Order: sequence, then C-alpha cells, then structure tokens
Amino acid sequence: HSMATLSTGGFSTSDGSLAHFDSVWVDAVATVFMLAGGIPFVLYVQALRGEPAAIWRDPQVRALVLGLVAVTAVLVLWLWLQQGMNPYSAIRYTALNVVSVVTTTGFASTDYNQWGGFALLIFFFLTFAGGCTGSTAGGIKVFRFLVGGILLSNQIRRLAHPNTVFVRKFGGRPLGEDVIVSVSVFIFLYVAAVALLSAGLSLQGLDFVTAASGAATAVSNVGPGLGPIIGPAGNFQPLPDGAKWLLSLGMLLGRLEFLTILVLLTPTFWRG
Amino acid sequence: HSMATLSTGGFSTSDGSLAHFDSVWVDAVATVFMLAGGIPFVLYVQALRGEPAAIWRDPQVRALVLGLVAVTAVLVLWLWLQQGMNPYSAIRYTALNVVSVVTTTGFASTDYNQWGGFALLIFFFLTFAGGCTGSTAGGIKVFRFLVGGILLSNQIRRLAHPNTVFVRKFGGRPLGEDVIVSVSVFIFLYVAAVALLSAGLSLQGLDFVTAASGAATAVSNVGPGLGPIIGPAGNFQPLPDGAKWLLSLGMLLGRLEFLTILVLLTPTFWRG
Repeated sequence: HSMATLSTGGFSTSDGSLAHFDSVWVDAVATVFMLAGGIPFVLYVQALRGEPAAIWRDPQVRALVLGLVAVTAVLVLWLWLQQGMNPYSAIRYTALNVVSVVTTTGFASTDYNQWGGFALLIFFFLTFAGGCTGSTAGGIKVFRFLVGGILLSNQIRRLAHPNTVFVRKFGGRPLGEDVIVSVSVFIFLYVAAVALLSAGLSLQGLDFVTAASGAATAVSNVGPGLGPIIGPAGNFQPLPDGAKWLLSLGMLLGRLEFLTILVLLTPTFWRG
Repeated sequence: HSMATLSTGGFSTSDGSLAHFDSVWVDAVATVFMLAGGIPFVLYVQALRGEPAAIWRDPQVRALVLGLVAVTAVLVLWLWLQQGMNPYSAIRYTALNVVSVVTTTGFASTDYNQWGGFALLIFFFLTFAGGCTGSTAGGIKVFRFLVGGILLSNQIRRLAHPNTVFVRKFGGRPLGEDVIVSVSVFIFLYVAAVALLSAGLSLQGLDFVTAASGAATAVSNVGPGLGPIIGPAGNFQPLPDGAKWLLSLGMLLGRLEFLTILVLLTPTFWRG
C-alpha cells in the first residue's frame, strides 16, 4: 500500500481498498502521502538543496492544496448538516477520498456513492481534476486549470478596458501562444475522449452514470467510478468484455496524453 | 408554433409539445424550419442577392448539416437494431428531436428519455452543441467546435513535423491569437458554468441526471432536460423554487455569453 500511495497507483490487496483496515491512522498517513505524490517531484529536489519554501511558493501546489481544502470543507458541511454524519467522521472520510480521487490514486475508505446526489456530482467533477504537472498523477492537471483561469481573468479585464494591453503571465513569465494552444487542445481532446468513450460504453448497455463516470475514471487513470457497479464499493469485473477493451484504450490515451497516440494515426507521420 | 420554430424558441401551446399533433407533416416542416433557424441569417441575405450557393459554401453550415446527418443515422441504427423500432418511425422521431436539441429549439415529438442509455448520453452531449454563430440558436455553437478541430489537426501535424511552420486558417483567413483565446475561454466558462450550476441544483436535492441535464439545458437555452422530471415528457414545474432561480440565472448567463455578465462583477469596470 505504501508503494501504491506515493505512486498514486491505488492498487490494494483487498477488495475493500483502505476500508478493509478501517483505521484513522492508516487513512491519515495515506492522505498525506497521496498528496505528496501529486506534487511536482522537482520541488522535492529543490527542497533538499536547501529551499524547502520552494514547495509552497509554487502556484500549482498552492492551487491544489487550497482547492482540496475548499472541496473537502464543502463536502464535510454537506455530510454533517444534510446527511447527519458526525463532523469527525465526515472530515476523516472526505479528506481521504477527495485527495485519492484528485491525485488519481483511487483508494477508497468508504462508499461515497451513498453520500447523496451532491456528493456524487462533486466526485464526478473531481475525477477530471488531477494533480500537478511533474507528478505521477493523471487527469487534466492543475497547471491547465491555472492557465484557463489566467486567460479568463485577462479576457474580463480586456472587456472592461478595451484599449489597455495586458500581458498574460504565469509564475512571473509571459504565457506564449504555443502554451495557450496546447492547453486548449488538450482540454478539448480530454472532454471529447470522455464523451466518445462514454457513448461507446453505453452502446454495450451500461447506464448513464456508469458509462460517464467509467469513461472519466479511465481517461484520468483514477480507479473507481460512480454508481452501483463500478463505484468505490464495486469493481469492473461485471462489465462486458467490449467495455473492458474500451476502458483499456481510454486509460492508455489518458496516460499518454492523447497527442502521442493520435500522431501515429496521421498519414504524414508515416510518410516521414 | 411557426414563430417558435424559426426563432428556435420552442414554446408550445400544448404540454405535449409537437407530440400533441402526432403528424408526420408537422414534424417534417418543423424539422426543416428549425434547421433554417440555426443557420447564419446573413447567408440568407447573400442568397437573396443572387448567391444561393453561399449557404452551402459556409463551413459552419456544412459542419452542422453533416453532423446532424451523422448523429441521426447513428441513433436511427440504435433504435432500429437495438430497440426494435421500425426504421420509418426511427427516422421521423430522431430527425425532429435531434434537430430540435441541436438548434436549441426544444420541441419534442416523443419521449426520447425512453430510448435507452446510449440515446440518453447522445442527447446529453447534443444539448451542448448549438447551431451556427449568427443565428438565433444558443449553445457552444458550430464555429467554436470548428476552431477546436483546426487547432487539434494543426497540433498533430506539428508533432509529426516539428520543424515545419503551419498557418492556422479558417475559411481561407488566418486564425489569430485573439480568436483562439476567446474560443478557449468561452468553452472553459461554458463547462465551468454547467458544472457549478449542476452542483447548485443537486444541493436542492435533484438527482445526478436531472441536475446535470437541467444545468446543460438551461445554459444552452434548449428547453427539455433528461430523466423522469425535466425530460421531454415532463416539465420544470415540480422543481423547488431555489432550483428555478438557479436555472434562470443559467439561462441568462448562457444567452448573454458569460463575459458580458462577468465583466459587471469586476471592480475595475465600475471604477471606469
């Protein structure tokens, strides 16, 4: 379990994943080290070279940690006030499962599929999020959301002041057109891949939630989906063979970040 | 009904929408004129000035028509071979309802919510599509998908031939950075708005499919959602008041294309 935590792999020797141990201590350690696995590894090298503050100065790490705290807080409030869970359990379960899905680890410590419609939607969206670029986590990744946020705030300021020139910056450096295009193309491909894959899965008879969450969890390399079949308390065993082939293709596409696979399909690549 | 067809409004005097008339002739006329309402109106002016070919030369119109034909064909095959509907009825019902959702009109001639998981997912994705820029249709709109496709094919060619310079073009003219950024920001905002709105709706107790499809149908200004409550055979009446306020906000944001609303929220705008 240590190896599958830091590598954000999420493989467990038990069908019940971390729920098998039912230990607060195991949950806390796993939460911390899954988060550690979702942070750019180059920052640890900088920290070891005598710059530990570099970790917190990184805009990706800040956004990831603040995002996780915000989502965990909202879900804790939902579980506590709406679902009647005691706040201590709510914090324990929410923290582990949110960090697990966002860092694309895939461990589960309880069946969050039973937490009601709001939690289901939040976990569905979190499946797309992903950790930081330069870590082992998959997903769309924090960096791309930050670029999207910078483009958005820039666009709004330009609308308010059409005659002012604003420079788009990320971490002090200007954002070039090549970065903007590659981030946009990646997110476009990501959503298109999940949409096509879920359509393919539903052709095999899977229901809406199973097909959509299965496609998202495969492309993001998370692990558990949502719904009674592939949710955190279930597994992918009952799915038809065709669905398993499609999910395998989705995992490969997501891990290799699409373009490396798509370029193999262009005739110009083979002509040299 | 004529007025609500060409304006892609979709308002009907009957709760059953076009299913109330149950007439092939009404369905056929409505399909043609909803499509006519989803095409850039400036092309009609060109056609009246003696250039009727301009309509079909427009890349948006081609993409819209080809996309509609492709999706209709796939759904007809699904209904015929998997759901056992006779092919004649399958073509009649699919054509009207697909054109209605894509042009964001919102008429329905049957309860496509009963067509199985695959059809449900396809209608969910179609809710985002939208007609052409310069028509009355809402949604993400064909132009933005075309820009996404151009960026994608360009990126793949660049990967295959890293030392060649490719110029991104749309309809013969080069695609500038400003267009790329505004398209990316728009799609980013669109998906974020639907995600936030569906989370807000599920906080009011709505289930996954109702919340997600309700948010999408509001922001795209389509009309019917999916599921037993707000699907084509239902309506929005049973939803709690809070959900109705949120949906109204979503419709406004989608119709005004986000930035015009968001700019009102920036302090710099008010400072002048």
